[in-house]
Amino acid sequence: MAQAYVAEGMSGMAVFETFFRKLPRTRSYVMAAGLSDVLDFLEAFRFQSDDLQYLRGLGLFADEFLQRLSGVRFTGDVWAVPEGTVVFPNEPIVQVIAPIAEAQLAETFVVNQIHLQSVIASKAARVVDAARGRMVIDFGARRAHGTDAALKVARASYLAGAAGTSNLLAARQYGIPPYGTMAHSFIQAFDDELDAFDTFARLYPGTTLLVDTYDTLRGVDHVIEFAKRLGERFDVRAVRLDSGDLGALSKATRARLDAAGLNQVQIFASSGLDEYRIAALMDDGCPIDGFGVGTNLVVAEDAPALDMAYKLVEYDGAGRTKFSSGKVIYPGRKQVFRRLDHGVFAGDTIGKPDERLNGEPLLVSVMKDGRRLSRHNSSLEAARSRARQQINALPPQLRSLERTDWPYPVDVSPGIARELERLRRARQ
Amino acid sequence: MAQAYVAEGMSGMAVFETFFRKLPRTRSYVMAAGLSDVLDFLEAFRFQSDDLQYLRGLGLFADEFLQRLSGVRFTGDVWAVPEGTVVFPNEPIVQVIAPIAEAQLAETFVVNQIHLQSVIASKAARVVDAARGRMVIDFGARRAHGTDAALKVARASYLAGAAGTSNLLAARQYGIPPYGTMAHSFIQAFDDELDAFDTFARLYPGTTLLVDTYDTLRGVDHVIEFAKRLGERFDVRAVRLDSGDLGALSKATRARLDAAGLNQVQIFASSGLDEYRIAALMDDGCPIDGFGVGTNLVVAEDAPALDMAYKLVEYDGAGRTKFSSGKVIYPGRKQVFRRLDHGVFAGDTIGKPDERLNGEPLLVSVMKDGRRLSRHNSSLEAARSRARQQINALPPQLRSLERTDWPYPVDVSPGIARELERLRRARQ
Repeated sequence: MAQAYVAEGMSGMAVFETFFRKLPRTRSYVMAAGLSDVLDFLEAFRFQSDDLQYLRGLGLFADEFLQRLSGVRFTGDVWAVPEGTVVFPNEPIVQVIAPIAEAQLAETFVVNQIHLQSVIASKAARVVDAARGRMVIDFGARRAHGTDAALKVARASYLAGAAGTSNLLAARQYGIPPYGTMAHSFIQAFDDELDAFDTFARLYPGTTLLVDTYDTLRGVDHVIEFAKRLGERFDVRAVRLDSGDLGALSKATRARLDAAGLNQVQIFASSGLDEYRIAALMDDGCPIDGFGVGTNLVVAEDAPALDMAYKLVEYDGAGRTKFSSGKVIYPGRKQVFRRLDHGVFAGDTIGKPDERLNGEPLLVSVMKDGRRLSRHNSSLEAARSRARQQINALPPQLRSLERTDWPYPVDVSPGIARELERLRRARQ
Repeated sequence: MAQAYVAEGMSGMAVFETFFRKLPRTRSYVMAAGLSDVLDFLEAFRFQSDDLQYLRGLGLFADEFLQRLSGVRFTGDVWAVPEGTVVFPNEPIVQVIAPIAEAQLAETFVVNQIHLQSVIASKAARVVDAARGRMVIDFGARRAHGTDAALKVARASYLAGAAGTSNLLAARQYGIPPYGTMAHSFIQAFDDELDAFDTFARLYPGTTLLVDTYDTLRGVDHVIEFAKRLGERFDVRAVRLDSGDLGALSKATRARLDAAGLNQVQIFASSGLDEYRIAALMDDGCPIDGFGVGTNLVVAEDAPALDMAYKLVEYDGAGRTKFSSGKVIYPGRKQVFRRLDHGVFAGDTIGKPDERLNGEPLLVSVMKDGRRLSRHNSSLEAARSRARQQINALPPQLRSLERTDWPYPVDVSPGIARELERLRRARQ
């Protein structure tokens, strides 16, 4: 496409918008994330000589065009909703405004990152909400879809309120608190469970011991035995339950620990957890102090994808649309205006940037002429605190894990509706 | 864990096995993939000085241990089923045999890659099978979970029988045929659809034109008009339908093309496809020559995860197990023996490597003392041809898209059952 644009002399400014069309059945909102990686990518965008060599070998591209590609940089502007913002169908998350070939070349990466991180942040926000203040740790690097996802899942989960990650590389890369516990293999490698506990806990004061390798409650008894053996020097922060009936086992474990005077030892649970199971455990009053959440979070098992797109809405100053069945595009560059009622989101209008509409505009300028604007308020910590505020400002129906029949009100402004109608008539 | 092993002087040989416990509801088999990346990783495994610096900063590791880490290489052996092999619950896919700390450090990467690529190959095998010889192209880089998944999805899909990918970087990296078509944005950027077709088709002989931007059948008419305009120079390979009722539209499109004498122009379909929709289109006799499959394939929407684990089964010459509820481990290093009946898989037995059992052993030696063994038969093309043979050798019940109540027979050998029982008694 880029070569065809160049061949036709089409170098006009294009506006592409990234948005999704429909909420999955099990989502009432989406939390936007991934912008930071998109901006890093655009700033660094260039073809390397080995890239150009591969393209040349395909026999599809003229030397003149390849020459041109070697000098391509991203020179455009980007507007976006800040990471951690809650968004709804058809609302632009990222808006790329650039010469059409540049904007087109960015498509795959922009969608890939905004999609993944928004899918995960949306899932993680639900899991964190269900845990009602108990800490949630990302435990899923092993089953995330590849190495990039393993990192981005840790990032997006933390953004959405998780307390940390077991992925040490992600912790290092994003400054997220790392959490680690032993695996069953560690216990298994010793002939005796108590010896394994002893070795690990002496090396790591304040650690967590995994108690379910052979028999959960006997494992708890071994921790108690170890505490007696060490007396005042005993310093274990928590035990972890990783199988069986976590509700019943957490209560029995709490009772045994308390009876032994180990009230300070916390209970950490993992194994097949998601927001529904965590909510059920909390409803049941289970004495669990923290949750390690893996697979269901890191692949967003109940909604692993959004129908996210990157669509041309304006070229060379004119609104652009398409009428493909079920996939109509609203033409023209947009802004989203969000109204609040006593601090609660009351409704959004998708309008033109210059329309006078009620509400706060959500999209802000984040890149100008290919340069990222001041990082003020774009740090991961700022996004995390924004995410918390956004969840707290949601209408209660949307926070419920039950499906709601009440869709959050999102209107399209008269200005955009008129433009769509005008383009529709012009096509007939 | 590694530090604790070193501190205790535990440097014995460990055997870890990667396997999954249960088939997802919508899978009758799993296609193993990802081994090549695992072997690359193990060969190159080392800590860089900045890694060690980060670890030092955590305050958890003794200088002596960090010093030791700096020299760590993977020195072990690996046995595995070749990529493209069909596997069932509890069957080892990859077996890592190494000093316990080395084998433990490899866990996350091994599971991450085998899991992702096996999840995708298993989905892609179903999609390819449903297309009954029509070509399937991976179209999903945008919605794969991150950049690594975008590459590995292209690889695993090709391994499982897809004809190519729209991901040019994956095509380059793995030698997979690249396929590209225009996006709607290209059509939209022109004032006239026919002008867009004209520009693109003149630049790329044998290309595919996307016809549904405004109205699918009018789009087809524009292709016909373009053909008339060019006469003998007309060289368009296919039209692509990307919305609406693909069945009805493909028939109407075929009729119009044929009536215009364009019998050679193929029909390519995309938009929300998966194995079920493709099978329905084929059952309906739709004249579709190829399928672009994106989201549902690349996130494996109906089964995005397997309960894949990496478990210690032997340490220092002794079988190891655990009895966690619902997560028992069969002790000892294993081999899988597969019996065939007239070329069809008849049943597997998971046994000890030295047990005399009927059937072909599936696990082969692929790495010795940290060195990858001859790449003979381990190329992507060899894996792809193995995958096809394996699918053809499946019992027909397992190839059906309907859920079968007939589980493929996998037994555990008497030798392993005895060892498990012995360890269970020893714990009581």
